[in-house]
Amino acid sequence: MPTTVVDNIGTLITNDPGLGEGLLGIVSDAAVVFEGDRIVAIESAGNADADERIDAGGRCVLPGFVDSHTHMVFAGDRASEFVARMAGADYEAGGIRVTTAATREASDDELRSLTSARLTESARAGITTTEIKSGYGLTVDEEARTLRIAGEFTEETTFLGAHVVPADYADRPDDYVKLVTGDMLGAAAPYARWIDVFCEEGAFDADQSRAVLEAGLAAGLGVRVHANQLRPGPGVQLAVDVGAASADHCTYLTGADVEALAGSSTVCTFLPAADFSTRQPYPDARRVIEAGATVAIATNCNPGSSYTTSMSFCIALAVRDMHMTIDEAVAAGTIGGATALRRTDIGRITPEAKADLVMLEAPSHHHLVYRPGVPLVARTIRAGIEV
Amino acid sequence: MPTTVVDNIGTLITNDPGLGEGLLGIVSDAAVVFEGDRIVAIESAGNADADERIDAGGRCVLPGFVDSHTHMVFAGDRASEFVARMAGADYEAGGIRVTTAATREASDDELRSLTSARLTESARAGITTTEIKSGYGLTVDEEARTLRIAGEFTEETTFLGAHVVPADYADRPDDYVKLVTGDMLGAAAPYARWIDVFCEEGAFDADQSRAVLEAGLAAGLGVRVHANQLRPGPGVQLAVDVGAASADHCTYLTGADVEALAGSSTVCTFLPAADFSTRQPYPDARRVIEAGATVAIATNCNPGSSYTTSMSFCIALAVRDMHMTIDEAVAAGTIGGATALRRTDIGRITPEAKADLVMLEAPSHHHLVYRPGVPLVARTIRAGIEV
Repeated sequence: MPTTVVDNIGTLITNDPGLGEGLLGIVSDAAVVFEGDRIVAIESAGNADADERIDAGGRCVLPGFVDSHTHMVFAGDRASEFVARMAGADYEAGGIRVTTAATREASDDELRSLTSARLTESARAGITTTEIKSGYGLTVDEEARTLRIAGEFTEETTFLGAHVVPADYADRPDDYVKLVTGDMLGAAAPYARWIDVFCEEGAFDADQSRAVLEAGLAAGLGVRVHANQLRPGPGVQLAVDVGAASADHCTYLTGADVEALAGSSTVCTFLPAADFSTRQPYPDARRVIEAGATVAIATNCNPGSSYTTSMSFCIALAVRDMHMTIDEAVAAGTIGGATALRRTDIGRITPEAKADLVMLEAPSHHHLVYRPGVPLVARTIRAGIEV
Repeated sequence: MPTTVVDNIGTLITNDPGLGEGLLGIVSDAAVVFEGDRIVAIESAGNADADERIDAGGRCVLPGFVDSHTHMVFAGDRASEFVARMAGADYEAGGIRVTTAATREASDDELRSLTSARLTESARAGITTTEIKSGYGLTVDEEARTLRIAGEFTEETTFLGAHVVPADYADRPDDYVKLVTGDMLGAAAPYARWIDVFCEEGAFDADQSRAVLEAGLAAGLGVRVHANQLRPGPGVQLAVDVGAASADHCTYLTGADVEALAGSSTVCTFLPAADFSTRQPYPDARRVIEAGATVAIATNCNPGSSYTTSMSFCIALAVRDMHMTIDEAVAAGTIGGATALRRTDIGRITPEAKADLVMLEAPSHHHLVYRPGVPLVARTIRAGIEV
């Protein structure tokens, strides 16, 4: 199989402290060789032979971003709800139903085309792995359809039938939970790797959420939880208790929540663009990191609370407003996301990892925060192929 | 001269309330005709003839952004100072001297090439007019050189010899003010439209600042002021008192400052990316707007406190964190910037205005904030030519 070398890399982020300096395993003046879709060697600049050579010209190369939390398959937008919120309206989970109506009306091809356009945008922003949740179908057929379409784009599909109680079940939410854990799960599971629940006032309470997650586990799915987004709640500790791979949002954490995360393998996934777009306070990331929990950052790309595909933007917010160091935030958007998906083949530039690389129009990863808002991703290589 | 029509515009922002709805003078389903570098007509979609036709496909078109405050001509970067600041160090004006050393060492061609690359980046982000300040030369020859080079790229050049007291004048700042108002002004004035001063503790006090501005006025230059960036101070009221076109930063405003701005023709120019990058609190824009002052937003692109070319990012911060409405923030980044430069030919899409247009990959300007961090500018037309 033909080999390619990305040579003359000024700052290479491997995310392997054994290969280079610091948390990010930084190697200066490096070269990365890949064969097909796999990395085969890290060398010093100018020392690797390969069939094809890409000259990084001293730029920074890092692992492709791993976006472990999105809701990419949807139709319609909610710009007017956003405008109202910026003028003072509150964010509540109920807005999800607006997107549900538009998504149900869209044809398969429309949803494919919308999803594809969003993924093109996110690849241009350096994202090479994207988790996609359902949750705008909310019927047996529509949830299965969403996951089938999501599965055309990613292996990381998540069944989120328990996103919000749909309008026709408003008076009997427990019947909806029975549907989710019964027929809907049955139809969705063949297309899903994960199950997720929005554990929040206005969505699902602790008992309902636990029922959903345990049904998913029994069906062989991995577990993720929307937890503690809009106020303190039981989501984080429930996530830890059922062995979730990730508790997502974590905007409102008590000391007990932080302690639970730190003592577990559940990743704390921050979604700062959602806090930005809903004017929530930013979570205190330092407390979580210093307690020893693993942290990820994801875009939460969705039309209601966080309509962005920019991991760089999320990283910049995490540094400025959540007081993460730049190294911590870059790790959270790459290897942190991989850990939240329980993947060891992505989020790092090491031999045998997937050849997912991003080249910045900058000499170091610091520029992702130092140059906020500037689209610095110059090239994205996914599975060895430039996108 | 050949004519061009941008047709099938979903949302056209004219910035003329006489032409359309609201503050932004929005016209739906519109077409814009330009001839050479001037706009000649606003029509309804499908109703204009021209030699060339650009189909906007229902997208949003707005006036090119007017970036009324930058320091684009410099060499070097200050990423390590930024990293230290994000880890807790304070921002102080003295860091300017680091860039001064690098800029003095750079050749004319190096400075040209660096400036050109930054302006390419900013044009891609939709900026069609850029003010550029000197202030990293700080000697007679170096300030004149910076302005000569800046003048190759823009008419909006600003002499900022009074950016900081250079190290060799640290013990005798008044001698430096004499130099600035004497020989340096003499050498700089032929290349400058404006004069500016950094009126701030650690830079220049009220008396020194007034001396600089009055010398500039006497030399025929217009006046702008760096005011109230890091703490309350005399800058804003001094700006109003000398009839400055703009008081820039305005992060710390007293009631008297707001009153002075509201009763004047001095534009209050916010630089939210600087507040972002120095972790300053964001100014209370509502108070200024409700008092009746004219407001602009600019990037403040510079290597110390705000290394961005993204007006969209600044607009998003102004809405999220300064509580401007999206319409107000878009106006501030277009016609507000034009007013801060005392220009009536830019920042609007009206007959006789310059053909400076931006097309978004979005149906409305709301998406500039609704989709934070996403590079939404699809096409930029400056003086009738696509860039």
